[in-house]
Amino acid sequence: MRYLLQVDFPHNGPFGDELTAVMSDLAKDIATEKGLISKLWTENEMDKEAGGIYLFDNEQDAQRYLKKHTERLESFGYSNIRGKVFTVNEALSALSIPAM
Amino acid sequence: MRYLLQVDFPHNGPFGDELTAVMSDLAKDIATEKGLISKLWTENEMDKEAGGIYLFDNEQDAQRYLKKHTERLESFGYSNIRGKVFTVNEALSALSIPAM
Repeated sequence: MRYLLQVDFPHNGPFGDELTAVMSDLAKDIATEKGLISKLWTENEMDKEAGGIYLFDNEQDAQRYLKKHTERLESFGYSNIRGKVFTVNEALSALSIPAM
Repeated sequence: MRYLLQVDFPHNGPFGDELTAVMSDLAKDIATEKGLISKLWTENEMDKEAGGIYLFDNEQDAQRYLKKHTERLESFGYSNIRGKVFTVNEALSALSIPAM
């Protein structure tokens, strides 16, 4: 079973290539997180928000990482960090895959 | 560029296999949405929430679908539906892929 961690928070920038430049080392470090399957980095320059959508192979690591990442974001000065852990309904997700 | 649509809302059930049974037809219909790359169906029985994480290949379809899906959920009786569209930072997301 896969567990999805959804995180978003107010973010005033940088965005795009500038965000990539300052966050590349952190992105590589996140790749080593126990239990991680993938992370999509999300950003919205108009709404001034950023976040991440993570898949983990177990719930314990998803919850552990949410706590760790929230503390890290707070140490960077972020606030109003919204984090939610869900299970993935694999059967429904498979049915929603578009035909090629 | 990929656009990520994040939707979640309060949900009192059903969950798991029972949710799959009642939503299978809708899941198949969503697979035909223009511009859709994938949808992960998300649910959390303890927190009484459900949602979806969608990838679209263009922003216009992501926004169009968010409006359509919000109206559909409201017609089902759901309220407090939270929907956000983000761009995916592909460079950072690639750096966060775990080594095999």
